[in-house]
Amino acid sequence: MKVTAFIFFAVLATNIRAQEPQASWIWYPGDFELWLSSKVQVLRTERGMPYPPFWRMDRHTPLVSFSKTVELNADETVEFHVEGTYYLTIDGKYVYDQNITTILLPKGKHHLRFLVYNPETPPAIWMKGNSTVTDKTWDVSRNTPATAKADSWIFDSPGDKPSAYRLATKPQTATSISKGGQSALVDFGCETFGYFKIHGLKGTGNITAWYGESEAEAKAGRDAETWDVFRISNAIAADFTSRDSRAFRYINFTWDGDVSFDDISMLYEYNPLEYKGLFRCSDDEINSIWDVSAYTLHLSSREFFLDGIKRDRWIWSGDAYQSYLMNYYLFFDNPLIKRTTWALRGNDPVETHINTILDYSFYWFMGIYDYYLYTGDREFVQQIYPRMLTLMDFCLGRRNANGMVEGLPGDWVFVDWAPISKDGELSVEQLLLCRSLETMALCAGIMNDGDKTRQYQDMADELQKKIMNVFWDSSQKALVHSRKDGKLNTVVTKYANMFAMTFDYLTEQQREDVKNHVLLNDKVQKITTPYMRFYELEALCRIGQQAHVLKEVKDYWGDMLRLGATSFWETYDPTESGVQHYAMYGRPFGKSLCHAWGASPIYLFGKYFLGVTPTAPGYQTYLVEPDLGGLKWMKGEVPTPAGNIVVSVTEKQIFVQTVGGTGTLRFKSAKKPSCATSAIKNTGPGRYEMELAPNSKYEVKL
Amino acid sequence: MKVTAFIFFAVLATNIRAQEPQASWIWYPGDFELWLSSKVQVLRTERGMPYPPFWRMDRHTPLVSFSKTVELNADETVEFHVEGTYYLTIDGKYVYDQNITTILLPKGKHHLRFLVYNPETPPAIWMKGNSTVTDKTWDVSRNTPATAKADSWIFDSPGDKPSAYRLATKPQTATSISKGGQSALVDFGCETFGYFKIHGLKGTGNITAWYGESEAEAKAGRDAETWDVFRISNAIAADFTSRDSRAFRYINFTWDGDVSFDDISMLYEYNPLEYKGLFRCSDDEINSIWDVSAYTLHLSSREFFLDGIKRDRWIWSGDAYQSYLMNYYLFFDNPLIKRTTWALRGNDPVETHINTILDYSFYWFMGIYDYYLYTGDREFVQQIYPRMLTLMDFCLGRRNANGMVEGLPGDWVFVDWAPISKDGELSVEQLLLCRSLETMALCAGIMNDGDKTRQYQDMADELQKKIMNVFWDSSQKALVHSRKDGKLNTVVTKYANMFAMTFDYLTEQQREDVKNHVLLNDKVQKITTPYMRFYELEALCRIGQQAHVLKEVKDYWGDMLRLGATSFWETYDPTESGVQHYAMYGRPFGKSLCHAWGASPIYLFGKYFLGVTPTAPGYQTYLVEPDLGGLKWMKGEVPTPAGNIVVSVTEKQIFVQTVGGTGTLRFKSAKKPSCATSAIKNTGPGRYEMELAPNSKYEVKL
Repeated sequence: MKVTAFIFFAVLATNIRAQEPQASWIWYPGDFELWLSSKVQVLRTERGMPYPPFWRMDRHTPLVSFSKTVELNADETVEFHVEGTYYLTIDGKYVYDQNITTILLPKGKHHLRFLVYNPETPPAIWMKGNSTVTDKTWDVSRNTPATAKADSWIFDSPGDKPSAYRLATKPQTATSISKGGQSALVDFGCETFGYFKIHGLKGTGNITAWYGESEAEAKAGRDAETWDVFRISNAIAADFTSRDSRAFRYINFTWDGDVSFDDISMLYEYNPLEYKGLFRCSDDEINSIWDVSAYTLHLSSREFFLDGIKRDRWIWSGDAYQSYLMNYYLFFDNPLIKRTTWALRGNDPVETHINTILDYSFYWFMGIYDYYLYTGDREFVQQIYPRMLTLMDFCLGRRNANGMVEGLPGDWVFVDWAPISKDGELSVEQLLLCRSLETMALCAGIMNDGDKTRQYQDMADELQKKIMNVFWDSSQKALVHSRKDGKLNTVVTKYANMFAMTFDYLTEQQREDVKNHVLLNDKVQKITTPYMRFYELEALCRIGQQAHVLKEVKDYWGDMLRLGATSFWETYDPTESGVQHYAMYGRPFGKSLCHAWGASPIYLFGKYFLGVTPTAPGYQTYLVEPDLGGLKWMKGEVPTPAGNIVVSVTEKQIFVQTVGGTGTLRFKSAKKPSCATSAIKNTGPGRYEMELAPNSKYEVKL
Repeated sequence: MKVTAFIFFAVLATNIRAQEPQASWIWYPGDFELWLSSKVQVLRTERGMPYPPFWRMDRHTPLVSFSKTVELNADETVEFHVEGTYYLTIDGKYVYDQNITTILLPKGKHHLRFLVYNPETPPAIWMKGNSTVTDKTWDVSRNTPATAKADSWIFDSPGDKPSAYRLATKPQTATSISKGGQSALVDFGCETFGYFKIHGLKGTGNITAWYGESEAEAKAGRDAETWDVFRISNAIAADFTSRDSRAFRYINFTWDGDVSFDDISMLYEYNPLEYKGLFRCSDDEINSIWDVSAYTLHLSSREFFLDGIKRDRWIWSGDAYQSYLMNYYLFFDNPLIKRTTWALRGNDPVETHINTILDYSFYWFMGIYDYYLYTGDREFVQQIYPRMLTLMDFCLGRRNANGMVEGLPGDWVFVDWAPISKDGELSVEQLLLCRSLETMALCAGIMNDGDKTRQYQDMADELQKKIMNVFWDSSQKALVHSRKDGKLNTVVTKYANMFAMTFDYLTEQQREDVKNHVLLNDKVQKITTPYMRFYELEALCRIGQQAHVLKEVKDYWGDMLRLGATSFWETYDPTESGVQHYAMYGRPFGKSLCHAWGASPIYLFGKYFLGVTPTAPGYQTYLVEPDLGGLKWMKGEVPTPAGNIVVSVTEKQIFVQTVGGTGTLRFKSAKKPSCATSAIKNTGPGRYEMELAPNSKYEVKL
């Protein structure tokens, strides 16, 4: 009876939807993102100076053709709106009248086509009738033979135009305002982002707002990284809101003339993301670290995943790749990943690596691999695939005679801020290329391109073998760092070893070797950036070193909290003290105190403590392999396309609540475990597995 | 003594120049042109509807890096201005202050770099000190490894910004205004272009301006091709100038409400080009044809060479190619050719042929071949060469297994508006490709790229042989039209034959064959468009058929004059009458009555009657081979980079006044000719040649 009702309502809902199709503003895929990213990435200033990126900046295409053939059962009045100058043809005939926003389409089959020109914002159209609507089924082209399907997002009404997209804002008050003679230091209590607002501002004079992520920076005058100067001449008191949004905790206002005001507040500017993921445990410091990580990630998850909100305010592929992974355990916001992926890639032709960095092209591919695994979103793969092909062509075209990549003129071989050799064939770069080729094979499969699937998979297999043959050093029991002009550089660094571990490129024996001789070997050069610690801690988790990782997190991230951090930093060096912590790149306040890559605990706790990870696209199948790592208890939620998986673990029991897909609960137990609602399989000494059906609850006693 | 003085003044002039170097606004090559062309090409309207082109539209790059290393003998104050937001570094250090327009550069060597962002208009900079100026020696890049030298044009002062570029305007009066009740028909006396101006406009109402290249069109209401509607509400009389410039001779104003006005005039909008070339002869009709041709070419020689000023107002490669050739005999304006070449080509990647038309890609290459021959401008070849390479890669990548081109999906095989087969391998398309490959070889030579020079020349040679092997039909004594799937289409059309003639691809015997069996053979399908008549008449001139060509010109162009043409038309069909002449493309006034390709007499009379043509780049060597073609006398001037060559010919004598370069005067004479100042060489029966030194006058008696 219940099932019948469900079906009945489902049918009804489908009918209602069929009668009221959703009309959205549509555009050429990638255009909205390129337009938005070129706006956003030029907002960076340094000491009052505009500071655009040093890579090529691409924009939307100004002239786009939109077309669709519709078949109508009855005459239909269709409303339409256009962002740009345009013409419309119906069945090849021009609709000359430009003063209309509705057309009558007679019953029958019709071909609709808009040609829209808009050099300022992405050409876009919106159309809605009883059955005819603009949606992703429309064909779009840049007036070239390469047609694509249109893209859309949240812009569903005529007035809700893509070009009007803005982040949300909300008023927030200062926690303290300390007035001096011609100055006022305002503290907003924590790292934040937005516009300041001066209430009841009166008088005539020049006001400078000195922003500081730290109090020291706000009070440092022209040593601060950002400031804004403006002039007022208000005979009558009026409110003033700053023109540009900035990152800050503190703002020190200084002025000349006879300026006075009543109060200072701010408009917090943010992406209204839903906090879907959650982690709580028996250790309050870890809980604080998780909360501050979440806030750090949120602040930098804006129009795009930015590296930092004060600096650089740019989209970096290596940083974004980590944000994507964190995002899967917090917001699970697909559009933000897609926007960032489009923005990073830009238009053809490919002339440099992404952000000019060799490794960053590879992270771009890898991001798509993960995106498909976590979300199962085939549509996006189909959209982005043409640009994957051209970037991979570029990468493959730059291999050397050995079929390996190395830094060529114009390439920045980054890997890490660390004293390592960047010359010749770095083992880590080959590993990243190999994973990128696997991504290409996966996506070619989604495109039903069997030839390319085989071709890329063969290249990946061959390269993986070659990497192991060339770089695996059986005496050091590790991958060595690099080869140049045929000569091995037998230094062992962690980079290649930890990626090989995470990519599952190692044999069981090699995993043990890498664990003992590299990852847990104090003699191997230490990693000091949170950026690479992300992968290091992940690799450690993959070999069951959660307890070790927990300690590292408490040390490193806990230290920042103890130093008063309200968001996590670009780097942290425990040997420094005081204002030393704020310096970087040779500038006293050059360091970003809110940097996305500082938020990795979000990922580590969701994936390796709660232990939830997809094993087939979109969580069709997934694994839950909790590891307390020394915590007394933990509980949390991990978002999936079908909703949140809830996991709660103590030393005595595991509770899992599932949504869609088929899961496997994998755990260790000293005693024989039991579950009232499912069979538990013993898979080895003290090891167990249990299947998780959709929409179910399981309680396992250990 | 005289020579010494000349050298002295030259040195002095050089010194003065060295002390006052010219500062120009500079930009990334092609950016100004792409920005301007995207503005211009969307100005087309059809019946009030915007009508942008149907090919991909490209814009300038929004982010450009400008850099130069300067060496100063003394401290120097340098003024600078920027179009866009920017930062400036001196020796790698940021100049944070954005409120300055001068900097002090200390004596010594300095590296200057601007990074400029401007999404609206081309990023551009201007800088001037005693020795430091912005000019074409600066390096520019789009933040990619491909650096280029900056480009500049006529923008030399801070206020004279590239983005402010506009054509010139001047007031002109109407020749008649016929007022009706609620209407007024204005005649401006001849085809023109610009903005109308209504003086003392008063009242309230909607006014429509119906434009007409003919009176019939202006009075045809919504059958007219262009109109503008505007609303006024003027309590006090005021002047009104139209917002958009249009092509017209007549404007019929109609209105509702109580509208009144004093007078109507116009602002003629034009490119202030200098009429350098000249042709006058004993036939007044030919003189009128030349004058109207010159006016036709001038009207369509605007920001770019447009096809027509009413329609399409677009830049078409096939049309532009002919305009270039006419330009060499009238304005000799290099910038206009360069702008048009940039605009046609657009940015990489190449996704379609130029204007989507197979043949139009080839005309683009050929235009560069001619440009270099006529102007000797190596700098432009160096600028455009990278985009030649990518377009040629595209073309070569689309050859079939026989190494020939044919129409592929997305290609428009145009050739001519004529009932001819466009299927398979057209002989004419292979000829155009062959000439394009010769252009590539020439330009690769200028780039000192020996490998590519050989490679392209080999391809051209091989293709030329192949064309003759495959398409030359020794029984028909002509090139046949095409081949499809290995099967020849043995129809003979004029296209391939006339191009082979003009490109000098024929043996002496083949020239005779083509002359008798094709060009002068009434059974071969007639060419009816002025577009292809251009090449036909040229080919006829090349085989000495000037008398025949003169008659054709008097018939075809003379007829248009007799029908009242004040500029030459897109097509003319002598079998039509009355308003039939204005119809095209299924619309009663669809035809353009001012179409650049109608102006070909400019080229024919300069090149094949006065007979002046360069034989080495930039007229280093040239030929003067006058042919009266039945005229009693002719005189004229042909512009060259060094000034005008003056030629005056009667049946009894030839007068030539030279400028730079070394010329050859080639002529026929029944009697033995004589020249007081030069030796005449007899080169055959009745044939003579004489060398022409620079800056000299020659009078040859026949």
